[in-house]
Amino acid sequence: MTIQYTAVAAVDAIMSKAWQAFHIYRKMSLKQRADFMRAIAKELEACGDELLEVAMSETNLPMARLKNERARTMYQLTSYADACEKGDWLDIRINTGVKESIPAKPDIRKMLIPLGPVVVFGAANFPFAYSTAGGDTASAFAAGCPVIVKAHPEHAKTSELVARAILKAAADCYMPEGIFSHIHSETFEVGQALVANSFTKAVGFTGSIRGGKALYEIANQRKEPIPVFAEMSSINPVFLLPEKMRTSATEIAEMYAGSITLGVGQFCTNPGLIIGIDNEDLNKFISSLSIAIKNATPAAMLNTGIFKNYIEKRANSLSQPDVETVAVAEKEPLMYEGIPTVATATATAFMNNPLLHQEVFGPYSLIIKCKDLQEMQKVTKQIEGQLTATIMGSVNDIKENEGLIDAVKNICGRFILNAVPTGVEVCEAMHHGGPFPSTTDSRFTAVGPDAIKRFVRPLSFQNWENELLPDELKNENPLAIWRTVNGELSKNKIA
Amino acid sequence: MTIQYTAVAAVDAIMSKAWQAFHIYRKMSLKQRADFMRAIAKELEACGDELLEVAMSETNLPMARLKNERARTMYQLTSYADACEKGDWLDIRINTGVKESIPAKPDIRKMLIPLGPVVVFGAANFPFAYSTAGGDTASAFAAGCPVIVKAHPEHAKTSELVARAILKAAADCYMPEGIFSHIHSETFEVGQALVANSFTKAVGFTGSIRGGKALYEIANQRKEPIPVFAEMSSINPVFLLPEKMRTSATEIAEMYAGSITLGVGQFCTNPGLIIGIDNEDLNKFISSLSIAIKNATPAAMLNTGIFKNYIEKRANSLSQPDVETVAVAEKEPLMYEGIPTVATATATAFMNNPLLHQEVFGPYSLIIKCKDLQEMQKVTKQIEGQLTATIMGSVNDIKENEGLIDAVKNICGRFILNAVPTGVEVCEAMHHGGPFPSTTDSRFTAVGPDAIKRFVRPLSFQNWENELLPDELKNENPLAIWRTVNGELSKNKIA
Repeated sequence: MTIQYTAVAAVDAIMSKAWQAFHIYRKMSLKQRADFMRAIAKELEACGDELLEVAMSETNLPMARLKNERARTMYQLTSYADACEKGDWLDIRINTGVKESIPAKPDIRKMLIPLGPVVVFGAANFPFAYSTAGGDTASAFAAGCPVIVKAHPEHAKTSELVARAILKAAADCYMPEGIFSHIHSETFEVGQALVANSFTKAVGFTGSIRGGKALYEIANQRKEPIPVFAEMSSINPVFLLPEKMRTSATEIAEMYAGSITLGVGQFCTNPGLIIGIDNEDLNKFISSLSIAIKNATPAAMLNTGIFKNYIEKRANSLSQPDVETVAVAEKEPLMYEGIPTVATATATAFMNNPLLHQEVFGPYSLIIKCKDLQEMQKVTKQIEGQLTATIMGSVNDIKENEGLIDAVKNICGRFILNAVPTGVEVCEAMHHGGPFPSTTDSRFTAVGPDAIKRFVRPLSFQNWENELLPDELKNENPLAIWRTVNGELSKNKIA
Repeated sequence: MTIQYTAVAAVDAIMSKAWQAFHIYRKMSLKQRADFMRAIAKELEACGDELLEVAMSETNLPMARLKNERARTMYQLTSYADACEKGDWLDIRINTGVKESIPAKPDIRKMLIPLGPVVVFGAANFPFAYSTAGGDTASAFAAGCPVIVKAHPEHAKTSELVARAILKAAADCYMPEGIFSHIHSETFEVGQALVANSFTKAVGFTGSIRGGKALYEIANQRKEPIPVFAEMSSINPVFLLPEKMRTSATEIAEMYAGSITLGVGQFCTNPGLIIGIDNEDLNKFISSLSIAIKNATPAAMLNTGIFKNYIEKRANSLSQPDVETVAVAEKEPLMYEGIPTVATATATAFMNNPLLHQEVFGPYSLIIKCKDLQEMQKVTKQIEGQLTATIMGSVNDIKENEGLIDAVKNICGRFILNAVPTGVEVCEAMHHGGPFPSTTDSRFTAVGPDAIKRFVRPLSFQNWENELLPDELKNENPLAIWRTVNGELSKNKIA
């Protein structure tokens, strides 16, 4: 397979084609959009083992994981398609007019409409689920937006195969030319040009803080600023509360050894920070965790860049004052393998050293030893925005530490009790997002059908005759959508 | 009444107090928030005529208008309070866990939670409805956020009286100290410091493009960027389609003369641009409109700044090449009175001159004469984002000009048929917002209870025991809120 690179000069024509496609695609019915998404899922399956093998060769991910990830990607496409077709996400509000009132109240009907072409930068760590046909692409298509994917250079061939699957589905479903474009480039300038192009109306990105912030700044400096949904960094703090630790230190340690090393720690929800009270129970936790980490097997990381980054950031963290390495996997790692590692630091060291707040992307976790619950709360207030935060606590722990619980709630997008943060369920209730710098916009999720809402805006129709309104807003409610009519949710027709 | 000015140095203490209040207020029930808002409405009423008289002396607005505006402000507070208490806006999604599935599906429950302290910069043109206790303040309180109002210097005393009413209601309702702060300042630095303060989590602003963009940039350059909801500028284009014009040119002219001059043109939805086809019907429209404008009465504008700005921008627009003045109110204006004025320009002149796209805040409207419908569509594509756009058209006009209708829909937040854009109904279906530069964020409304959504973000609770969940998410649904449970909207309890 040869990879064709796109020049900066070609971006204008690509975006202009997407803009033309937008005006056709936005008017296609919810069912047409959904059928297109389902067709993409089918094409992904039709790619068979070839796709998995190419992905395996590019990413070092094991076959079983890639199989699961493709299945997840197909589920995302079909479940967002179902949500799209159902239409509840359109947030329809109707206030029927009152001609008799003085002054007369106009008839106003509001629904969400698509923003326009969406540029997607895929994730290194999810070659399927958060890349070319991943969550951003699926939610943009559901919203009614064309998509332009900038392929991740570390899995360019995988991306190319997926792009071909999307284009085949687009042709089979009579989608307009320009509904989907796929761009390979090894320079930053092409990405920059895509975000700066006036036809681009939103951006999805999963990757580093540096990359995400750079795109965010370009987008804000445009003549017309546009939203950037960048998922950037999270260390997913876990808080070990005293009563729970008294009964379950060993059990928690085993659970967390698995979470820290899962997928060579290459998940945005990897628990990189564990905060406990410095006592016997924490010692018990640390020694159990240490045994498990020492017995864990190093495994190849996604690519050279991620491996080098892990080596460097891990070494950097371990060499900070008052940081103590407590366990390293004992099996000698091969080249490009990430070594599972756990270290400890004092609360003071953590609070005085911003470097210890940074993500070490890989199977690494830092345990913070606090003197007491007061110090734990002080630590919490210093932690920046996170995708997730987890409490390991008994009912009493929760009830007796309201201030701490409130502080933790305030820094995260998903708040977990007595479980691990890895594993991001695709469902309506999922919020995969969080305060800055975990994402650029805490108000939107990247997982679950609510992700569609990133790519839409409301439009009110005032005083339009029924026959001229879009089907979604017509009196008859032909699509049987839940709508708020004069303040009340219903699927009823309007008399 | 003496106005106490706040120094930049005092901002930290004010915001820190707001941050402390946030942690108490966010946990108060929806009913407590709603009762507080209703109490504010009652206090506004209790201010009696004194408040109206002070506002009249500061803004030149007539008593009848101020009476109406206070009533509107009270309605906003009470209707957003009702919406707050009802809780449908919380967008609750619940996926109950499935322990038997492999791997087990966790129980996840999502709701919207408040962002934190909100800084509000009130509008010059609405001393009540979009100022101190206006839409931004009401929606922030409903969301669960403390509010810090920077008083508009042109109606500082009015703002002071309203602030006292809010503080009285806060005390009566046992609100925490810091729930509301009111700041007077005549320098830009205080506003800057408010937006830059790390405890500020969102900003509401209504005013000029320059002011809005300046705040937007400060907010984006913070270590933690925050959302700025700035409503800045709109010329609210009106499109006159041929069949409708053939039958109704005179009637439309009369309707629009009223809309152009309403409130001395000082509304963000004032129709500043009228686009027609250069033919007999348009001539008829122009001559009817001219008669009405010539007979219109100049009236005092809000303040010296707005008056000077009108004089300057009006003169600037009228002096552009190919712009022709067609009607000016004949009554000699007194000092500070805005003169109702209508002018025409060719489509070419409009398309070549960005100055003609700018808002002239006041009773001014520019009529663009297009050769034909094709040229009208070309003009449309050059128009920037708007709060509203209006079609004056018959059913045939709409059906035969799909491309034009689509292009117009794309640039506005509220799309009106055969009516005027002035008059912004407070209701669920209202979208008062629009693509940049009409606002900084087309995805949110400043009017109607959906305005609450500007000041919240989602939080998912994973694996929490029922008794530890907030009432909104408990199995019993004690607040009887509409919730999406396992994909289906209902008010049912979870068994």
